[in-house]
Amino acid sequence: MKPTSNIQSSRPLLIDALQYSKPERARFEEWRDGGVGCVHVTLSIWENARETLSVIGEWNRLLEKNSDLIALATSADEIEKIVASGRTAVVYGFQDTSPFEDDIELIEVFYSLGVRIAQLTYNVQNRVASGCWESDDQGVSKFFGRGVIAEMNRVGMLVDVSHCTEKTCFDAIEYSSRPIAISHANPSGFVGTDIELNRRNKSTALLKRLAETSGVVGLSMYPKIMKNGSNCTLDTFLDMASWTVDLVGIDAVGFGTDFYTGWPESEIKWWRAGRWARESAIPIKGFSPWPEWFPSPVAFPNVLAGLEKRGFSAAEIAKIAGENWLRMFREGFQPVSK
Amino acid sequence: MKPTSNIQSSRPLLIDALQYSKPERARFEEWRDGGVGCVHVTLSIWENARETLSVIGEWNRLLEKNSDLIALATSADEIEKIVASGRTAVVYGFQDTSPFEDDIELIEVFYSLGVRIAQLTYNVQNRVASGCWESDDQGVSKFFGRGVIAEMNRVGMLVDVSHCTEKTCFDAIEYSSRPIAISHANPSGFVGTDIELNRRNKSTALLKRLAETSGVVGLSMYPKIMKNGSNCTLDTFLDMASWTVDLVGIDAVGFGTDFYTGWPESEIKWWRAGRWARESAIPIKGFSPWPEWFPSPVAFPNVLAGLEKRGFSAAEIAKIAGENWLRMFREGFQPVSK
Repeated sequence: MKPTSNIQSSRPLLIDALQYSKPERARFEEWRDGGVGCVHVTLSIWENARETLSVIGEWNRLLEKNSDLIALATSADEIEKIVASGRTAVVYGFQDTSPFEDDIELIEVFYSLGVRIAQLTYNVQNRVASGCWESDDQGVSKFFGRGVIAEMNRVGMLVDVSHCTEKTCFDAIEYSSRPIAISHANPSGFVGTDIELNRRNKSTALLKRLAETSGVVGLSMYPKIMKNGSNCTLDTFLDMASWTVDLVGIDAVGFGTDFYTGWPESEIKWWRAGRWARESAIPIKGFSPWPEWFPSPVAFPNVLAGLEKRGFSAAEIAKIAGENWLRMFREGFQPVSK
Repeated sequence: MKPTSNIQSSRPLLIDALQYSKPERARFEEWRDGGVGCVHVTLSIWENARETLSVIGEWNRLLEKNSDLIALATSADEIEKIVASGRTAVVYGFQDTSPFEDDIELIEVFYSLGVRIAQLTYNVQNRVASGCWESDDQGVSKFFGRGVIAEMNRVGMLVDVSHCTEKTCFDAIEYSSRPIAISHANPSGFVGTDIELNRRNKSTALLKRLAETSGVVGLSMYPKIMKNGSNCTLDTFLDMASWTVDLVGIDAVGFGTDFYTGWPESEIKWWRAGRWARESAIPIKGFSPWPEWFPSPVAFPNVLAGLEKRGFSAAEIAKIAGENWLRMFREGFQPVSK
């Protein structure tokens, strides 16, 4: 007898707004076992247009060979249908706008290929915007940057600013006609600034502005951006979730684990330096161990149980688990009607 | 009052299986005025994957700005719906497999972007096959060539061999699990071999084999491959149509004009030499004038009237005009069912 999928049987709908593991069947099984109904995956960081086509080719084969576990979703309706079939919906996204190169038309072309979320930049300055390693007062570029946001709004591609500067985040909220996403980051007001990657987290002022404009932030279990790093306890994570909900309200908080595994350590250099530097500007110390209570997405049920013990209602847990993201995806993935 | 479209009012459905004009509104108006319901257009000859994305970007804007006249079709059902709306359906295709580069996965990627027809090669030898300028005994390559045909069969992309060698045509028929197309060529048995581009036309043996395997040939008004060139009369063209129907039957003949206009003469060098030679191996003499009875696709109704005068029945004219291509497109554009 085929075991019942945890996705179908578990409620509520669970959406992870960012994972970047090496894609392989073991991950898709973890999603099933953890009851994860939808995962936003990364196709490109520094990959250009042509290279990204090959990544899509690789995913075409993964989707074909693992069609018992996963399917591509390009709308909220498709996510719901895939989850109803007991499988995990995959949403394509970029962590940098590098696949668009210098060509405004490539946004719609990649939308046609299923891409629904793009982060404006990854850590550093590119043609579109400035990333969190740059100084805080660098924002969205006046010409290409604003044009890219307008075009993403038009075709129905969600703007993500997780790795961006404070100013890029505020600029993106201002220039975007639609709510934007912080798919994976934590509140620096709770975590503090004495952590290794403190520039990755988001200020209280920014999170408030995000929520006012119907945006959503995905809380992350990535050790380097949690309080106490890999030693962060589930209790501390739940404290952070409560703190964030108190700050911005129940409609603005979701999960974006930033979970990754399966890569060789040499991959870190690609993420940190791409082709644009010979060495990473930040020392490469190897992968941080995931906290013992979140070794992988299979542990999601414990996190949801933790929220319940903290007194969150079933309706509130459903919003954090997936409904807030689903709301954003439902509106944000649609082209502007003519 | 908006003038009634000739596409909606004229019967039968008219499909032109190849045009390669510089795409602009004047062409789409000609299609309307000539009652052309569907046109297979060329996105790439030598353009590689990245360059072809930009061509698709250009077409996205053309489709948006001329949505009163044209719409993209990716299936026979869509062609019929677009024609029913009084507009012309555009089918995307390549005249060379250069957009696939050396990557078997790019066939499905371009299928996802709407491409439904690809000619294996344009005049010369490439990774996949040999073109009509090469010697007649060069065919489909053993590894990549057969793989590309199998993958096109799998995803639902029609194999076209118009500019290929005799052996490539026979090889493609053999290796393809689905009928193949000669979208634009004439029978050398009728036209003779004393014309400038005689290697472009197709032998009697090949056309018979094509028809036996449910393929279709699109007869062309391109002066350089018609009897008497630009001086070919409508009567001679109709003789050729009758001759071809007598040879291969009424189910294997359609139109594929190869009509082009709007390009600067410098474009000829790109078609003839791409990036692979500094000069064309065939002397460039400028554009040939189109015959006076076919200055553009607006003249299609005269050609259909000519067929009627020759005694073709309405049902036979409907097959030649569009039904034969529609039959091929209906089956050929579908992915193989699992």
